[in-house]
Amino acid sequence: MTRPITLFTGQWADLPFEEVCELASGWGYDGLEIACWGDHLDVALGATDADYIAGRRQILDKYGLKVFAISNHLTGQAVCDDPIDQRHQGILSPAVWGDGDPEGVRRRAAAALMDTARTAANLGVDTVVGFTGSSIWKYVAMFPPVSQEAVDAGYQDFADRWNPILDVFDEVGVRFAHEVHPSEIAYDYWTTRRALDAIGHRPAFGLNWDPSHFIWQDLDPADFILEFADRIYHVDCKDVKLAVGNGRNGRLGSHLAWADLRRGWDFVSTGHGDVPWERCFRALNTIGYTGPISVEWEDAGMDRLVGAPSALEFVRKNLFDAPTAAFDAAFTSH
Amino acid sequence: MTRPITLFTGQWADLPFEEVCELASGWGYDGLEIACWGDHLDVALGATDADYIAGRRQILDKYGLKVFAISNHLTGQAVCDDPIDQRHQGILSPAVWGDGDPEGVRRRAAAALMDTARTAANLGVDTVVGFTGSSIWKYVAMFPPVSQEAVDAGYQDFADRWNPILDVFDEVGVRFAHEVHPSEIAYDYWTTRRALDAIGHRPAFGLNWDPSHFIWQDLDPADFILEFADRIYHVDCKDVKLAVGNGRNGRLGSHLAWADLRRGWDFVSTGHGDVPWERCFRALNTIGYTGPISVEWEDAGMDRLVGAPSALEFVRKNLFDAPTAAFDAAFTSH
Amino acid sequence: MTRPITLFTGQWADLPFEEVCELASGWGYDGLEIACWGDHLDVALGATDADYIAGRRQILDKYGLKVFAISNHLTGQAVCDDPIDQRHQGILSPAVWGDGDPEGVRRRAAAALMDTARTAANLGVDTVVGFTGSSIWKYVAMFPPVSQEAVDAGYQDFADRWNPILDVFDEVGVRFAHEVHPSEIAYDYWTTRRALDAIGHRPAFGLNWDPSHFIWQDLDPADFILEFADRIYHVDCKDVKLAVGNGRNGRLGSHLAWADLRRGWDFVSTGHGDVPWERCFRALNTIGYTGPISVEWEDAGMDRLVGAPSALEFVRKNLFDAPTAAFDAAFTSH
Amino acid sequence: MTRPITLFTGQWADLPFEEVCELASGWGYDGLEIACWGDHLDVALGATDADYIAGRRQILDKYGLKVFAISNHLTGQAVCDDPIDQRHQGILSPAVWGDGDPEGVRRRAAAALMDTARTAANLGVDTVVGFTGSSIWKYVAMFPPVSQEAVDAGYQDFADRWNPILDVFDEVGVRFAHEVHPSEIAYDYWTTRRALDAIGHRPAFGLNWDPSHFIWQDLDPADFILEFADRIYHVDCKDVKLAVGNGRNGRLGSHLAWADLRRGWDFVSTGHGDVPWERCFRALNTIGYTGPISVEWEDAGMDRLVGAPSALEFVRKNLFDAPTAAFDAAFTSH
Amino acid sequence: MTRPITLFTGQWADLPFEEVCELASGWGYDGLEIACWGDHLDVALGATDADYIAGRRQILDKYGLKVFAISNHLTGQAVCDDPIDQRHQGILSPAVWGDGDPEGVRRRAAAALMDTARTAANLGVDTVVGFTGSSIWKYVAMFPPVSQEAVDAGYQDFADRWNPILDVFDEVGVRFAHEVHPSEIAYDYWTTRRALDAIGHRPAFGLNWDPSHFIWQDLDPADFILEFADRIYHVDCKDVKLAVGNGRNGRLGSHLAWADLRRGWDFVSTGHGDVPWERCFRALNTIGYTGPISVEWEDAGMDRLVGAPSALEFVRKNLFDAPTAAFDAAFTSH
Amino acid sequence: MTRPITLFTGQWADLPFEEVCELASGWGYDGLEIACWGDHLDVALGATDADYIAGRRQILDKYGLKVFAISNHLTGQAVCDDPIDQRHQGILSPAVWGDGDPEGVRRRAAAALMDTARTAANLGVDTVVGFTGSSIWKYVAMFPPVSQEAVDAGYQDFADRWNPILDVFDEVGVRFAHEVHPSEIAYDYWTTRRALDAIGHRPAFGLNWDPSHFIWQDLDPADFILEFADRIYHVDCKDVKLAVGNGRNGRLGSHLAWADLRRGWDFVSTGHGDVPWERCFRALNTIGYTGPISVEWEDAGMDRLVGAPSALEFVRKNLFDAPTAAFDAAFTSH
Repeated sequence: MTRPITLFTGQWADLPFEEVCELASGWGYDGLEIACWGDHLDVALGATDADYIAGRRQILDKYGLKVFAISNHLTGQAVCDDPIDQRHQGILSPAVWGDGDPEGVRRRAAAALMDTARTAANLGVDTVVGFTGSSIWKYVAMFPPVSQEAVDAGYQDFADRWNPILDVFDEVGVRFAHEVHPSEIAYDYWTTRRALDAIGHRPAFGLNWDPSHFIWQDLDPADFILEFADRIYHVDCKDVKLAVGNGRNGRLGSHLAWADLRRGWDFVSTGHGDVPWERCFRALNTIGYTGPISVEWEDAGMDRLVGAPSALEFVRKNLFDAPTAAFDAAFTSH
Repeated sequence: MTRPITLFTGQWADLPFEEVCELASGWGYDGLEIACWGDHLDVALGATDADYIAGRRQILDKYGLKVFAISNHLTGQAVCDDPIDQRHQGILSPAVWGDGDPEGVRRRAAAALMDTARTAANLGVDTVVGFTGSSIWKYVAMFPPVSQEAVDAGYQDFADRWNPILDVFDEVGVRFAHEVHPSEIAYDYWTTRRALDAIGHRPAFGLNWDPSHFIWQDLDPADFILEFADRIYHVDCKDVKLAVGNGRNGRLGSHLAWADLRRGWDFVSTGHGDVPWERCFRALNTIGYTGPISVEWEDAGMDRLVGAPSALEFVRKNLFDAPTAAFDAAFTSH
Repeated sequence: MTRPITLFTGQWADLPFEEVCELASGWGYDGLEIACWGDHLDVALGATDADYIAGRRQILDKYGLKVFAISNHLTGQAVCDDPIDQRHQGILSPAVWGDGDPEGVRRRAAAALMDTARTAANLGVDTVVGFTGSSIWKYVAMFPPVSQEAVDAGYQDFADRWNPILDVFDEVGVRFAHEVHPSEIAYDYWTTRRALDAIGHRPAFGLNWDPSHFIWQDLDPADFILEFADRIYHVDCKDVKLAVGNGRNGRLGSHLAWADLRRGWDFVSTGHGDVPWERCFRALNTIGYTGPISVEWEDAGMDRLVGAPSALEFVRKNLFDAPTAAFDAAFTSH
Repeated sequence: MTRPITLFTGQWADLPFEEVCELASGWGYDGLEIACWGDHLDVALGATDADYIAGRRQILDKYGLKVFAISNHLTGQAVCDDPIDQRHQGILSPAVWGDGDPEGVRRRAAAALMDTARTAANLGVDTVVGFTGSSIWKYVAMFPPVSQEAVDAGYQDFADRWNPILDVFDEVGVRFAHEVHPSEIAYDYWTTRRALDAIGHRPAFGLNWDPSHFIWQDLDPADFILEFADRIYHVDCKDVKLAVGNGRNGRLGSHLAWADLRRGWDFVSTGHGDVPWERCFRALNTIGYTGPISVEWEDAGMDRLVGAPSALEFVRKNLFDAPTAAFDAAFTSH
Repeated sequence: MTRPITLFTGQWADLPFEEVCELASGWGYDGLEIACWGDHLDVALGATDADYIAGRRQILDKYGLKVFAISNHLTGQAVCDDPIDQRHQGILSPAVWGDGDPEGVRRRAAAALMDTARTAANLGVDTVVGFTGSSIWKYVAMFPPVSQEAVDAGYQDFADRWNPILDVFDEVGVRFAHEVHPSEIAYDYWTTRRALDAIGHRPAFGLNWDPSHFIWQDLDPADFILEFADRIYHVDCKDVKLAVGNGRNGRLGSHLAWADLRRGWDFVSTGHGDVPWERCFRALNTIGYTGPISVEWEDAGMDRLVGAPSALEFVRKNLFDAPTAAFDAAFTSH
Repeated sequence: MTRPITLFTGQWADLPFEEVCELASGWGYDGLEIACWGDHLDVALGATDADYIAGRRQILDKYGLKVFAISNHLTGQAVCDDPIDQRHQGILSPAVWGDGDPEGVRRRAAAALMDTARTAANLGVDTVVGFTGSSIWKYVAMFPPVSQEAVDAGYQDFADRWNPILDVFDEVGVRFAHEVHPSEIAYDYWTTRRALDAIGHRPAFGLNWDPSHFIWQDLDPADFILEFADRIYHVDCKDVKLAVGNGRNGRLGSHLAWADLRRGWDFVSTGHGDVPWERCFRALNTIGYTGPISVEWEDAGMDRLVGAPSALEFVRKNLFDAPTAAFDAAFTSH
């Protein structure tokens, strides 16, 4: 097995980076997908300060951890979003939030994404995982009526704001892996097709395959891998459990908090949900994906100190290699 | 059969009111659920001008049509919505839109809803059907993270804005029937529970049962009737067809237009979709609902001049009365 | 189409026989499956009094109705039942109930079944439809624990009580068609196998195929026809609708009355439920069944005066004959 | 993990109590749910004899086992049952059975239940698990027709017989946890609602949650926990596997013995069936249940010496605690 | 509604052509899809004899019938098939069968297909419907093991044999519409992709959409229309009913005859099966298909004289046009 | 646990026999089901040469392996097949293939099967596992139309060719266990019934139960065991995973290679697919099967050196014995 298994540090950013390294290393993870928040990775420093980068590397080396991708979902979210409100203030650094003027926030977020590409390059990493935000997600219910023009404008806005960012990615030789997700410009199969069209299918823009929002939308996560084979730049393992069927729990979550069992679905530790992991891992074999398999651990009903090592165990057990010869070759060996 | 079958005029507001009356009467509808837009019903006039009301009545009488409810979804939408944007401008009267300043729009919409209650009373109708809007619908994806406080504030905002409106409803003896629907404060089972709690379960606020958004959210429309038996103030028949299952069509619609077959669901003419109408009509019998059954016709793949009469035929055929004696009574009649 | 469609009069026994004849004839039924209760058919008279029989025939002839089977479910129920209680008193004639001593009731019920065979013969009818009762139905939950001996004894009791009755059936050339049904010795597939074994597969004992209790038990009514092809002596059409799935409505009915929507299933007018009628009618074609198709109308949510004619219409439309030549015969006709 | 895992001794009562203690202790169980039959626990002694209680305690202590609940299903069954027959004789102590006169049996059973409460109190245990019996279970098929009055009388009989027993429970500070189960007054969701109504929702009467009869009735065992949150007094883990679907195996079991694969469902070792254990354990977390999780082992196709330790292993692995902080808290920790 | 509904005459070729015309016209069909067997259409004559063509036209005109496509499934089958055996002798004209030498049969069949194109052109028809045959269908079970080379060779054989035929089609301005079907080079979604690749996607080769073999293979017939939008050259309506699920009836038909209810699926009259016709017709609207909708009637359990008119009625009722304006356009018409 | 777990060597025949013995022994297998190809077992020698047999035994003994059955699928395939082509050449020994003349191949294959019986007897083994081939498998699509006579002739051909072989089996006291499989005379439930009829149900001909082709045909593998209880002579464990449902992947495999995720189903390592193993093993207990459980390992997406030991672990864990006493026996032990 050559594919490394990493831990995404985003849900651990309340802990100091080194503590997370120690935990992940102790559980046997091969590396980290480092989040660009908390004290884990500062992209302003990372883009410009070689000592800072060296310091991060030193900690990773101390714990025998590799890094194949860094992630900046939170800042990416603000690049296209509309409205920009207190939710964004909650997740953005003070520098990006600034005075909170929406257009200013968006511009500073875009600049920070460029820095994220530079940080990745400096760190020797070729992939940045993240979100794009979307100016038209708010139209999802299609009421009040939304014109085709309004939808088209949303994809154009995405292209206009991300193309300059992707130019920097190209400059420094790094790829952006967008996580298909509600709230984003691409949140399902057809919007992913549309978003790739909008950006002219430029190679700098690919996908972070995370199936956790596919299942409850009735999307097939393994088919998704086969269909977007050349754009699967990174893999995040997060699981989800459907709980509809009693006629009262709905697909839209009812404004209820995570772990509330009246929700129609919820995130659960990898292997505890409805994602067909084995078929998905076989699909990754089929397309020749050799990058990291990263555990993004979210389960509001399980302690993370229990969940993170058990997710690692689950992934290791199900991530087997394809053979080199067909089984029926033996029938003809007379 | 004593329950009247009416046609909701909202999707016909591009036609003059009298033309719609002529059509509906010709098809055999018993009456109309009159939309407060187009030239169908002007609530500013209706609230104050007895002659205007008399004129509307005259047209209805000419075509032998009754009216049991009037509807003001479009203006109601603006009472709580945030953001207020060009979508609202598209559906609001110039008077309510005014300069488009969001808070002003919301206040004028609230005032128009009060006028809608007065118009209903003047017209001799005890029910206004409509939408509430919602300041927290935009949080539906729960990302960026939404605090419990933000959700609570949304329901409080709803209560704060609608209680004064409902005071006018109480004054004039009219009830508001909210249509449970995405984009609204109550869009599924649990949000309906929460919205009723927020408003203190005051009798002025009930529900317009329309199952078309229940099916794709996996809600049981018949159970909904039984659970909210004392709040079913009006019934709208709109059907919906699921088209998920191929792994690519999603529950959220992919920003695709109506009738695009890549959508995971779409509205269809009543009787052509997945709503279990017969069980729902039996549930209405069970709770003793005797009000109108209104056809809200929406099917982007069928001509409405074909669809409206066939929907009427479907409803008439499936809307049978309950018997007065049990079938096994005959076993003991020796 | 040569198979006649009849109406079972059991659920109409509160009306005088002639009134039911008039109704059935008016709706277009070909004949009746006459219930042996109410004033419809008195088996004590029928067994012995030729004038009585002639009188019944006269009424039938007056309305152009034929009769292919008579039914005595209610009395048959008492032949094996244990306990015998006030439920039986409610459905038995005073003569059979007598002093209500259980064993006496059972013996008088058995004698009445013999008279039912004689009545059928006198009426020129070769089939009696009915129930057997069961001394072990009460063990259905298997708690308190039930020994294999206790179950075996129940089937033996059935054989012991019914063999003498069936001897009379053989004498007069009439067959008994047991309706597979909860409360009876045979209520599903395997108990039907066991009951036929118990009775030595004697030809006097066959089955009335009524699928209404098959669906909610997850039995396949069409396969049942194919499996018991040589024992399908009569066909009753009663439909049933499942309403489980919300996690609260149960398969066992919750001691709730018919038409209560909290029941996990309920009887509905033929064609309104989950019975795959077309496949069942094709199965009847396959086994060469040419007897009557009888509508046993039960729907606690629909008026019977609406339901009976619409059930007839449904059956007529779906009861088509098989062709005489294969469709691909035409491919070779050069 | 603070919730203890216990073994219900009912299916081991053919073995001496101490032998069961030794086995359970050896497998790693935290304690026992002691059955009041075999030689495990004598409630006549337990209610009155402090030495007897001390002796039981001594054995438990010797094997390091705790006890949180005792169970008297077998005697409880006789309190309301009708008919009382040889099945009851098989499971009752000679003292309770006496001369077998039904009403006498019921009265002695009721008295024994009062003693069971006293025994529990003497043992320092606050919960008695058991069955209620039912005078109307035999009406489950609803044929011969059952009047509403007859059903009502059944619930009244339950209340009349159990209220005096529950008075003793209140006196000694012990609760009764009824196991929802066919043959009992409450066997599904709606009958549980009705039974609680009948008893005035008095706190002395709660529920033993055992999902094994829920699945085949199509009830949702996790929703049941949420709906009856304040009445979940005890938890029994027994699993069940559905085997319907071939059109021949029925929901009612066909009078077939356990392990006969023609049954439509059968009990299986916990974790081998269709119960969604993880969601159920999460539901128990949600309602704050901190009592014992008791393994009631029944699997007629597996040796119990294999099954009991493997069920313990399964439960331990799936019974995880909820975390104290939300996973997305880390997103805002800048 | 401008799309004509035609009757495919293949299953009626045992009747004289004029008799079929009379029947179809009497039932109200708009035209015919004429089979090139029986006496319906002789392609040797049709390709060369103007009088013959005029004669056919005369009969059609006499009965007011149009023709939009002709069909030559039976001869097309022999173009690629291997083995060629008595089954082919049964369906081929003596002239094509000749001495039955396989390669000779294939060559004569190819020549007859060229004549079919010429006949179509002479008849003023732009579409020939039919089968291709396949030299690799016999490998469907993949045992004995089949090499990739063997599969590739089959597609090459198809291209080699059909390209010269299609050259003639191009010459005379007619298209071939292959019916995706077991036994053919393209029998499902992926083999259709592969066959189109093999033939270089030349426009002369398109598809006859017939969903009857899609359902039992678990293919989505509506998605198929959307995916192969530019190749849907003709539409045949044949329905199919699945009958698997009892664990004994299999997907492969068990060598059982049509109408045998032990088959896992069977053809049924259009509207009596599992094809989602309405969604399919909407898909045809979406891709702008304006050609004929042809009823290919096959139901071994229904008389064709009953089935053909009822299929026409079903199709007419479900084949509605799309509207020209969106339903929510009316919301903005203030 | 007394049932031995063996490894079928067919998929390992590219390795020398002794190497396979060493591997299987090292993983903990109890024995082998030896394939009669590669160098594993030569039936020409085995039938006649005692030293050869002794040599094989010696190797088995060296590794502590037992043998309960030998397998000759590849040669058996040629006994009835038509056509005989290069696929057969690929899997047959040169001696059986000879000049490739089909009838000669069939005759030599039949003779080799007789030798296989003799080899089994010499080896002290009472079961030969294998395939029959079929002259009518090629008719599976039923187009071109297949007459009943042609189907009947296929079963007759099977009987004619296999009865003489089975005579030899009877002579030497060995049974043939046919593996129900596409390409064979019996490939599903009804064809198995038909094949057993054709052969007069002679005891020499039984079945090798291998569920891997049952699942995708929608057959119930556990019911199959119960229905053919007296013919289950051997058990092979091969698993299969369905991948239909996206509307594009079909049941027939699309001529795609193993491990291609566009196939509608594929073989997977035992325990990774859709076979309900536990219920099947319980069914084997029910019929009293005490023979070997043989792992036939095929998974084109997993390395066999990983798969073979993990399949053994899976089978060992799920293959538990039935108990000797019922669990509710303990309820009556007072």
